[in-house]
Amino acid sequence: MKKVLSGLIMINGVLITPLKIITVKGGDVLHAMKSSDDGFSGFGEAYFSVIDYGVVKAWKRHKKMQINFIVPKGKIRFVLYNDRDGHEVNNYQEVILSLNNYSRLTIPPMIWFGFQGLAEESSMLLNLASLEHTINEVDSKPIDEIKYNWERS
Amino acid sequence: MKKVLSGLIMINGVLITPLKIITVKGGDVLHAMKSSDDGFSGFGEAYFSVIDYGVVKAWKRHKKMQINFIVPKGKIRFVLYNDRDGHEVNNYQEVILSLNNYSRLTIPPMIWFGFQGLAEESSMLLNLASLEHTINEVDSKPIDEIKYNWERS
Repeated sequence: MKKVLSGLIMINGVLITPLKIITVKGGDVLHAMKSSDDGFSGFGEAYFSVIDYGVVKAWKRHKKMQINFIVPKGKIRFVLYNDRDGHEVNNYQEVILSLNNYSRLTIPPMIWFGFQGLAEESSMLLNLASLEHTINEVDSKPIDEIKYNWERS
Repeated sequence: MKKVLSGLIMINGVLITPLKIITVKGGDVLHAMKSSDDGFSGFGEAYFSVIDYGVVKAWKRHKKMQINFIVPKGKIRFVLYNDRDGHEVNNYQEVILSLNNYSRLTIPPMIWFGFQGLAEESSMLLNLASLEHTINEVDSKPIDEIKYNWERS
């Protein structure tokens, strides 16, 4: 039930897919997602979210939406928390994305997630989501209700 | 055959759709596209393109792909050129996008386009394209073959 990527135990259904950056004179081209890619499960909505330095936005969980996060600006720490199957181990997963680790983070439904800006200038993520956002489809929890040490560097 | 938006004569099939920026403490949320939006004609691929200050990338024309350009960083001038129906007037359209004019530019197939970075830091666009990129689907022309004064401010 658990995949192993580079020695890291992954939460089931979570994907980290390295993306190509194509060097072009005058400005590079950065892949994000193709409809034939792993992790694509339909297009519902695309939006950007800005996150200022040090700020944490947590926690959210989507009931049906599959998320694909890409970070084209700055550096963002994502923390995922899996309470789907009641396991008490390997429930947390931390992923840091930036142009230096330019990858797509796919999060299946029913995983709690939060994120934190790690770049002094503000950071930005793109979510390519499988469904349009609706308020009934998302659960929220205050940051304190899932324990995580956001202060460590 | 021509739409009029804010007094501007538009090339047929081109859309400029103002997008919402939702103010959020710690970092705003910026809409890009929903599958129910005008201009959505399927998801094939998403990619970013960076454009350095003053640089022009021109000209390209997609045979089948519908383009949706969004500018989440910097400021970009887009120039469209319509030779689909042989008209000699209203063939050019210029659109400048940035966070101050945060809109989505939809370009139908068979329109020539180019773009130029107008921000001193580099600028970035997102294309939400209706098809995956393939080399056979895109035509290119050298910048000189379609006349446009890229120097004017």
